Amino acid sequence: MDEQHVVVLYDIQLDRLRTKISEACLDYGLERVQYSAFCGKLTRNKREELFLRLTSILEDKPGKILMQPVCEKDLKSARSVENEGSATEATGEEGT
Amino acid sequence: MDEQHVVVLYDIQLDRLRTKISEACLDYGLERVQYSAFCGKLTRNKREELFLRLTSILEDKPGKILMQPVCEKDLKSARSVENEGSATEATGEEGT
Repeated sequence: MDEQHVVVLYDIQLDRLRTKISEACLDYGLERVQYSAFCGKLTRNKREELFLRLTSILEDKPGKILMQPVCEKDLKSARSVENEGSATEATGEEGT
Repeated sequence: MDEQHVVVLYDIQLDRLRTKISEACLDYGLERVQYSAFCGKLTRNKREELFLRLTSILEDKPGKILMQPVCEKDLKSARSVENEGSATEATGEEGT
């Protein structure tokens, strides 16, 4: 399989659209890493499908969406820190 | 120069710390791409310095920080869409 890690970031004003975007990311099996960011592995076809779905949700409304593929090498050189009680865990979907 | 593109994502509950994190990213010349996400080019040393600074701001408080390097090849295969009036433009620092 042609799966590659992707990071999906968005910045969308309308709550209704932001919720739809997050639901689409979840439908494609991505994991929430932040209030408006998801990541996970997708094939090239699935990446293309998801990007089209996201842009069709946003249409011409204010906002931006970035889908950034990340290769295995870069993924290994990521740095991260996580302490318990992060906002996404504490407040769930569409919390502050 | 050993510059590489990085995406910095964070999910931090305390407003005061979130503001400090965003200020640190701006100090390092990164560009805001979303409410809690920055990106830009940094040398390996600067990436290391910034990550240490971010973790020292967060300390043991609830939250997470991800610093993801992205190679030129992956950067070229990024997909994005941006419509006018995105939230970061409209509300500025620490807006909703």
